[in-house]
Amino acid sequence: MSPKYAIGVDFGTESGRALLVDVADGREVATAVALKQTIPAVLAESGVDPADVIGVGIDFTACTMLPTTQDGTPLCQLPEFRNEPHAWVKLWKHHAAQPEADRINAVARQRGERWLDLYGGKISSEWFFSKALQILDEAPHIYHAAGRMLEAADWVIWQLTGRETRNSCTAGYKAIWQKGEGFPSRDYFAALHPDMADIVDSKMSRDILPLGAKAGGLTEQAAAWTGLRPGTAVAVANVDAHATVPAAQATDPGVMTIIMGTSNCHMVLGTERVEVEGMCGVVEDGIVPGLYGYEAGQSGVGDIFAWFVDNAVPPVYHEEAKRRGLPLHALLEEEAAKQKPGEHGLLALDWWNGNRSTLVDVELSGLLIGATLATTAPDIYRALLESTAFGTREIIEALTRSGVPVNRIVAAGGLPERNRLLMQIYADVTNREYRIIRSALGGALGAAMHGAVAAGAAAGGYADIFAAAQAMGGLKDEVYQPIPENVAVYDQLYADYSTLYSYFGRGENDVMKRLRALRRAALTE
Amino acid sequence: MSPKYAIGVDFGTESGRALLVDVADGREVATAVALKQTIPAVLAESGVDPADVIGVGIDFTACTMLPTTQDGTPLCQLPEFRNEPHAWVKLWKHHAAQPEADRINAVARQRGERWLDLYGGKISSEWFFSKALQILDEAPHIYHAAGRMLEAADWVIWQLTGRETRNSCTAGYKAIWQKGEGFPSRDYFAALHPDMADIVDSKMSRDILPLGAKAGGLTEQAAAWTGLRPGTAVAVANVDAHATVPAAQATDPGVMTIIMGTSNCHMVLGTERVEVEGMCGVVEDGIVPGLYGYEAGQSGVGDIFAWFVDNAVPPVYHEEAKRRGLPLHALLEEEAAKQKPGEHGLLALDWWNGNRSTLVDVELSGLLIGATLATTAPDIYRALLESTAFGTREIIEALTRSGVPVNRIVAAGGLPERNRLLMQIYADVTNREYRIIRSALGGALGAAMHGAVAAGAAAGGYADIFAAAQAMGGLKDEVYQPIPENVAVYDQLYADYSTLYSYFGRGENDVMKRLRALRRAALTE
Repeated sequence: MSPKYAIGVDFGTESGRALLVDVADGREVATAVALKQTIPAVLAESGVDPADVIGVGIDFTACTMLPTTQDGTPLCQLPEFRNEPHAWVKLWKHHAAQPEADRINAVARQRGERWLDLYGGKISSEWFFSKALQILDEAPHIYHAAGRMLEAADWVIWQLTGRETRNSCTAGYKAIWQKGEGFPSRDYFAALHPDMADIVDSKMSRDILPLGAKAGGLTEQAAAWTGLRPGTAVAVANVDAHATVPAAQATDPGVMTIIMGTSNCHMVLGTERVEVEGMCGVVEDGIVPGLYGYEAGQSGVGDIFAWFVDNAVPPVYHEEAKRRGLPLHALLEEEAAKQKPGEHGLLALDWWNGNRSTLVDVELSGLLIGATLATTAPDIYRALLESTAFGTREIIEALTRSGVPVNRIVAAGGLPERNRLLMQIYADVTNREYRIIRSALGGALGAAMHGAVAAGAAAGGYADIFAAAQAMGGLKDEVYQPIPENVAVYDQLYADYSTLYSYFGRGENDVMKRLRALRRAALTE
Repeated sequence: MSPKYAIGVDFGTESGRALLVDVADGREVATAVALKQTIPAVLAESGVDPADVIGVGIDFTACTMLPTTQDGTPLCQLPEFRNEPHAWVKLWKHHAAQPEADRINAVARQRGERWLDLYGGKISSEWFFSKALQILDEAPHIYHAAGRMLEAADWVIWQLTGRETRNSCTAGYKAIWQKGEGFPSRDYFAALHPDMADIVDSKMSRDILPLGAKAGGLTEQAAAWTGLRPGTAVAVANVDAHATVPAAQATDPGVMTIIMGTSNCHMVLGTERVEVEGMCGVVEDGIVPGLYGYEAGQSGVGDIFAWFVDNAVPPVYHEEAKRRGLPLHALLEEEAAKQKPGEHGLLALDWWNGNRSTLVDVELSGLLIGATLATTAPDIYRALLESTAFGTREIIEALTRSGVPVNRIVAAGGLPERNRLLMQIYADVTNREYRIIRSALGGALGAAMHGAVAAGAAAGGYADIFAAAQAMGGLKDEVYQPIPENVAVYDQLYADYSTLYSYFGRGENDVMKRLRALRRAALTE
């Protein structure tokens, strides 16, 4: 049998990237960026026979949702709706539905909805029903004109297969769906808005497919677009972070995957469903079938470091970095790495962009304590790296406190490869071993793996995602082990981090909210 | 009668500056810097007849102390002691006597010494008996060889007049002397160290002269050094900050003088002696005769702004300042001045160099709260300016709470002239009117005024410092009035500052001390 291949397409905010991968061992054969040209490009680059591509999967940033007609035509493509902002796709980072999210949460609390605690006690303004309710509030004619409302991820699969499906990942994490329980009740939606009572049955679907399920085969039309064979297996849609977990071979309970980039996304699998403080969500089949996927997040990580580098580093470091041909980040890392834990005398709360887990509060803000006239930029840089590690430890402690073990960690995303100091600090602060995912394109690789599962073992793919992960996933050789003397110092610093975390984050001192309110008042006067 | 003049000499850490001033109106006729040449230089520059110079005063940074022989020869000038560090002068900023200060405070608390509370509950390592005890601890032969131990300020007067005097300002603020009560008891000193029991009677003096008293006339030798007439009246010594008060015409109860520079020194006169939290000291006759001088301080002000400018401002501002030929401070001030109070969303604790008043704690450190990904360097710069104003308000609140009114404020020192935004912020935060001293050399002018008082009215000088202040002191025309809408916002921010001030400064959360301890441990490993 000739080698078989799968293709994963990773849809980010602005573009799609296709990865063509050997299903035998996960070897990454070709990759290309662009939206419609991406699959033809990897086929051309690799010289792979389209007949040997057995499956396609995609992942997409979520919740990215749009209203369509009954047949899946986006409303924004109809002339009568072209100038209506609410007819267009709402990107994952659209935050304008905060009043709707507030209502969703208030009504849920009032009614004692049990699902609320599975989402950290707060549904985000970024999520599906917040966005849907905003359309209903602000453009009811758009809401009523929408035959379907769905994730862009599922919409892409619909375009490829001609069949509308809904995947358990976006349904579970972004649309309050729970296996065996379904969506919130009709009564709940009616309480939110009378016109929303039937949203699930009229505009969505109760038929939620697990990840790796086959959504269908490529249509003739989609085959023409992509250069693949009609009927090629297409997996149901997936989310970027969640697709990375099998690519990191992190499909066993107790292994945490952290996607580290501008923000951190933490995923760990558990064998039971328990309530854990401040999760983004816990969803059965939400990451891999048969296990409960716990997702948590830190809303600012790499973007805090970038803020610091852009806004608070004096010229002398810029000049040295330039002279030596180094990125400024690398120079600061080099300087900071010369220090012992505790040496800079600083402690920070990593809330420059609010706190997602475990406090679920966008109004929180950054704090730096311990500054003296001797404090330098590398001191503060190191304190900021550490603060994000402390934030991750808060999440791990919340999980283990509730009975979800976290035994070792695999890091993915852009940061782990670029910043060795950061990885050692994470290992020391959390007192756990860290490995790094082999692929630089974890989301696309995971999508391809789901494509290989959708194709099935008989076609040269896999029976399930666990087997695909074993064969196609992988880790780099390097291992970050906690250093005991560092762990001891960081335990002391973490105790103080945790005290400040509670003091400023759990209502004892709401100064951060008062500062936000004063800022808003000053800016709107 | 020909115009009469007085000369004030301001001794700083590295040099002396003489100011020759018209006693009729305080007109500053000539000034010169250098140590021995300074008085001849102002005479030469001004062309004033030495016969028309009726009085001389000096001020000196304190506590700057030295051991001498019985006749006033500094021990360090004797060959046998030249290589002994403890035989030399100890500058005001010598901090090595902390273990001795700790003992002084512990023994005082244990014995229930009432004077302790007049000094904020803590005697500083910088002060007289801490330094004396350190000499006794570390170099007992120097201690025993010292016939006299005294302030450099009093030593200079001794050299000018041939007569040893002690002034009420340094005795009161630096050597625990209180009018009518004298120094701590022999028993107290004996408890500190048996060999120290008789320090006051054997090496110091109980004859403390009020400010403006005549120490004596210039000796023939001193007249030869200075070019002045023998017998010219010389006032007892003074301290720079305290000498500034009459130069600022702030000799009425309820008028606070703030010397604003690298640090802030606050002085206000009261009609009664009460205990106020965290004062540097309260001394009868300590600033002007007949009133109680309250002194408080902030250990970091201008040096925090300088730290920020040097360590945390990105190149773009440096480049713009350079292009426009502005100091970077001025550019940041200009940018920060465009904001409304509260607009930056930040709050800081101004403890980069510890906290002198009201917490008397060098282990405290700086804090910044409220940072977001949108925070800019001018935002932080403004928050730091504000933090020092909040620190001053803490001092004012402590005074008024204890019954010492503070009705209006005169600012002196280098900062008020350079930073208009800072002055407006102080006015808004403290809700009080600010004026600025007319003279740029407030210490020297005040010293000259005390010289004119030492000369007396009959010689063309003044009967007392109040009359001298009226005639020779002065304020600039500009007035900073609090702006009511700013006051309202700052009242809200101050409430939060004050909560954090107590939380981190009064033992509820000693994280700053733990961070210092971890830093010390890391650096000494």
